[in-house]
Amino acid sequence: MPSPSSLPPEFHDIAKRVNNWGRWGADDEIGTLNLITDEVVREAAAEIRTGHRIPLALPLKEDGVQSGMIPGRVNPLHTMVQINQEIFGPGTVACSDDAVTMGLQAATHWDALTHVSHSGKVYNGRLADSITAHGGAEFSGIDKPRHIISRGVLLDVARAKGLDRLPGDHAVTPEDLDEAEELAGTKVGSGDIVLVRTGQIQVYLAGDKHGYGYPSPGLSVRTPEWFHARDVAAVANDTLTFEIFPPEIENLWLPVHALDLVEMGMLQGQNWYLEELSTVCAQEGRYAFLLSAMPEPFVGATGTPVAPVAVL
Amino acid sequence: MPSPSSLPPEFHDIAKRVNNWGRWGADDEIGTLNLITDEVVREAAAEIRTGHRIPLALPLKEDGVQSGMIPGRVNPLHTMVQINQEIFGPGTVACSDDAVTMGLQAATHWDALTHVSHSGKVYNGRLADSITAHGGAEFSGIDKPRHIISRGVLLDVARAKGLDRLPGDHAVTPEDLDEAEELAGTKVGSGDIVLVRTGQIQVYLAGDKHGYGYPSPGLSVRTPEWFHARDVAAVANDTLTFEIFPPEIENLWLPVHALDLVEMGMLQGQNWYLEELSTVCAQEGRYAFLLSAMPEPFVGATGTPVAPVAVL
Amino acid sequence: MPSPSSLPPEFHDIAKRVNNWGRWGADDEIGTLNLITDEVVREAAAEIRTGHRIPLALPLKEDGVQSGMIPGRVNPLHTMVQINQEIFGPGTVACSDDAVTMGLQAATHWDALTHVSHSGKVYNGRLADSITAHGGAEFSGIDKPRHIISRGVLLDVARAKGLDRLPGDHAVTPEDLDEAEELAGTKVGSGDIVLVRTGQIQVYLAGDKHGYGYPSPGLSVRTPEWFHARDVAAVANDTLTFEIFPPEIENLWLPVHALDLVEMGMLQGQNWYLEELSTVCAQEGRYAFLLSAMPEPFVGATGTPVAPVAVL
Amino acid sequence: MPSPSSLPPEFHDIAKRVNNWGRWGADDEIGTLNLITDEVVREAAAEIRTGHRIPLALPLKEDGVQSGMIPGRVNPLHTMVQINQEIFGPGTVACSDDAVTMGLQAATHWDALTHVSHSGKVYNGRLADSITAHGGAEFSGIDKPRHIISRGVLLDVARAKGLDRLPGDHAVTPEDLDEAEELAGTKVGSGDIVLVRTGQIQVYLAGDKHGYGYPSPGLSVRTPEWFHARDVAAVANDTLTFEIFPPEIENLWLPVHALDLVEMGMLQGQNWYLEELSTVCAQEGRYAFLLSAMPEPFVGATGTPVAPVAVL
Repeated sequence: MPSPSSLPPEFHDIAKRVNNWGRWGADDEIGTLNLITDEVVREAAAEIRTGHRIPLALPLKEDGVQSGMIPGRVNPLHTMVQINQEIFGPGTVACSDDAVTMGLQAATHWDALTHVSHSGKVYNGRLADSITAHGGAEFSGIDKPRHIISRGVLLDVARAKGLDRLPGDHAVTPEDLDEAEELAGTKVGSGDIVLVRTGQIQVYLAGDKHGYGYPSPGLSVRTPEWFHARDVAAVANDTLTFEIFPPEIENLWLPVHALDLVEMGMLQGQNWYLEELSTVCAQEGRYAFLLSAMPEPFVGATGTPVAPVAVL
Repeated sequence: MPSPSSLPPEFHDIAKRVNNWGRWGADDEIGTLNLITDEVVREAAAEIRTGHRIPLALPLKEDGVQSGMIPGRVNPLHTMVQINQEIFGPGTVACSDDAVTMGLQAATHWDALTHVSHSGKVYNGRLADSITAHGGAEFSGIDKPRHIISRGVLLDVARAKGLDRLPGDHAVTPEDLDEAEELAGTKVGSGDIVLVRTGQIQVYLAGDKHGYGYPSPGLSVRTPEWFHARDVAAVANDTLTFEIFPPEIENLWLPVHALDLVEMGMLQGQNWYLEELSTVCAQEGRYAFLLSAMPEPFVGATGTPVAPVAVL
Repeated sequence: MPSPSSLPPEFHDIAKRVNNWGRWGADDEIGTLNLITDEVVREAAAEIRTGHRIPLALPLKEDGVQSGMIPGRVNPLHTMVQINQEIFGPGTVACSDDAVTMGLQAATHWDALTHVSHSGKVYNGRLADSITAHGGAEFSGIDKPRHIISRGVLLDVARAKGLDRLPGDHAVTPEDLDEAEELAGTKVGSGDIVLVRTGQIQVYLAGDKHGYGYPSPGLSVRTPEWFHARDVAAVANDTLTFEIFPPEIENLWLPVHALDLVEMGMLQGQNWYLEELSTVCAQEGRYAFLLSAMPEPFVGATGTPVAPVAVL
Repeated sequence: MPSPSSLPPEFHDIAKRVNNWGRWGADDEIGTLNLITDEVVREAAAEIRTGHRIPLALPLKEDGVQSGMIPGRVNPLHTMVQINQEIFGPGTVACSDDAVTMGLQAATHWDALTHVSHSGKVYNGRLADSITAHGGAEFSGIDKPRHIISRGVLLDVARAKGLDRLPGDHAVTPEDLDEAEELAGTKVGSGDIVLVRTGQIQVYLAGDKHGYGYPSPGLSVRTPEWFHARDVAAVANDTLTFEIFPPEIENLWLPVHALDLVEMGMLQGQNWYLEELSTVCAQEGRYAFLLSAMPEPFVGATGTPVAPVAVL
């Protein structure tokens, strides 16, 4: 049973402005992904110029980004269940097979819209209690978006500021996004997937898992309105927490999650590897591409590993 | 320690003809995926006409395709590790989080090149013993292909024969592929990913897991040469076993696996859902599209779940 | 949020008669295990005559008792994470290590008192909502009993009736228990752990997993009063469902679970292997022994595998 | 394929003196557990004086003793698969159920005899290659001892030296064991299970997981001969590594494991919680008791969690 909301008025003010409940009908479970129309995809295809592909996922391994700070979000434990097993007799073709246990949000992932709730509600006004141990999320599980492929735009906030990476206390503001959009040389529009680069993932790659998670630059509570105004389909970045952490407003934890996922119905991605993409975009002087980032359709799940690829 | 090979001469004859060891250098770990060049990708992008997207993955769930026939290949066990947990205090934004345990080849998946070995060897002549419980596949793990996106061509063998699905004892031959290629109205070429539809997955969807796996139509031992001649990058189909099962030649188990994965270095996909794609391709009278099918980069894994999408 | 109880008046009548809430204080979390006093244990030790030991657990393996009927209760998936790994260099001592994923109630197990709830409550009147995905059972988790070792008494109901095993529709009644107690030649008393043998596990051992679970003989809704009258500490048997299944009273599902666990606070054990014990007890003409059946202390868990041993 | 042994002559000298291969026949898979005869068990029962029971297992939880130092040996991830699920309809009895993923040696555990190999061999001269990913240990898996209950003797080395805990570089010698045996006031004999207390587990309990594992006091390479001379059935202690770590002899890693498990065929236990037992033994002035420490019968496993209990 949820506690009465203790979120401050300023949260509720923004919430009203970005709320998309009912916009795609009372039955909708995928929110702003509705904005990726066939036309958007055709235009996204036109962004492919060289055919060069850049993967955006971190390797999935036991020594991954999780440090134990988030209970239950375990790094992938990969085990072999068969190794060169000659199952049909000696000298026959031999099989190797493996299994994995992992937190679905352990590495490069999408949050489902149901990853957070507030005031007892999830996206589209449904009850948070519709999430159960038995079946997971009855509505808006990560199996509900059937595909995620659209135009991707890299907003390289760190590069736009001439920095290698943003400092740990930097909240990425709408003005920062404007600045990066100018660098990108393209206008973010309806159905686009925006990748916001902070450079923070370098901290993890340098071996400091705790420093990667905290303190971390990330999106400001003011950014949901920016994404809402442009009708962005989804946003991902290169941090553990997505939003600035610890938060900008004391005791207002995870407000961006609540605004993006619950109010707007807009998917978030975390731990995306944007370094190589950043280099290539800067070299080529263009920041738009076809982005394919299919969720694995875990039924009722509130998140999923994803292996996104940008095609330039 | 592998047993001495007991594979028959006819296997070794074909093996010689399709062998790609050394073709992309002694260090190569991805085989025919090398054929997906930037140019191939640019041409694949040109196949996008409507922007319509079709997902090809089965839902990931506990009641999935595995029936227990293959030890260790467990269906996904999805569990919640947090449900609307107000981790920062009562009334704050609440989090839900999940974990999964699954066989990596349990559902819609790619085999890695190391999924099978024969005569003590895996692709490119490396020792099968380079696969260990500790680190999995030292070479040619499923993390090695950094991206899989190319032109996809549906070879709808069942439809070309006017059948809803092929009977359980039907081995798909090169002649069947020719016939389906004619229906497709396009020539399969270098770097293409071929999807072969048998209709067999309908048996699973009708609730018969055992019947889905056995007996099953699938690729004939004669098909690797067909794929080799056209320099196909990868092949996937809508069966559990990929190849005809039980096999065409008595006591020659999994020869197609051994030829495709070990000799050619060509990835295989299984349990792909091709029914919706088949309907749309038939309606539109075209069978080529952009196919994105990124492996999840599990380090050292011999397979991976994949959520492919066809963009028409 | 629990639904309003729809349990019939006859359930509530029995519930009142066997209820132990508050009996060991408002803070108690272990119920009738309180009855295993030091004195009971000393007397239990005196039951050891020959020193002969009989294990009562089924092997833990992937091909275990679960048939998929109970979602999430997966058989053990045992995997090697290292095999003869020379972690300190070639020629050094080599290590093998393993991991497991399993439903805690998959095989021979104890239910924790929190395994079931009714009318929104668990044992000792606590809220069922105190069980969460995050921490499991806040109260009366299986880690709370610190040890379970006492006098065990085998009530061999099948043997007392001259049967190899009870038929699938046989509800074990108080009269059946009296009869088996007479065969046992000892009076069940305070702090005893009672093992009730039906012989049903033979169905599983013969390879019929579905037939093992359903239909199954098991304890009648009238037995909790019998156990309550004798102040039994815990009860285990050789069935999947513990109680007669399907139930004696239409639409009254799992009433024995609710009475034993919630009302009395008495632990239940299932899938115990009692065949060898039955043979030895009959040969020796005595049915009492020292029973050690330690729960694995999974924090907050609602059940646990157990490897019980009877010492005669 | 094992590398040629690089173990030094002094190791092989001791190995010869403690070797038990063939002692209980060529088919034996349980080694010194054969020494626990019915008579030993009867005498063990006579050690029960007060009936007081002391559990020796650490709680099983995600924040357990493993620090990530040992790949694949993951702390228990406990998840709920059902929470108060009214599976038979609203208002009926509701069920909670859980699952776990864990390294079998993650917490308080027994090593199986196959946990280590050297020179390509495991206990009783069998090939180390008989351990596979498919089935685990073909011989001497932890399912092979059908029960472990015997007389336990606490050798409280720390207390005998007047220390709270031994320093990290202290190798417990035969002389230390003699000293503790004198304190115990009983002679260790055939079939006894010896618990060696160093106090090291206090480091873990104080929150320092890394310091717990390294450096750690533990058994000296000279102790296997002491245990062999007394025909001890099994030995457990309160450390992560069992033996002194880093080792006494440079580059001779895990010699005690190799001597105890491979040569003698004597089970080892680690991470046992002996603090409460130590206090009670000291208070009562007696150090022998009935010890029940049943392995969970994971088929083919090289280790198992155990929940031991001492009954005084």
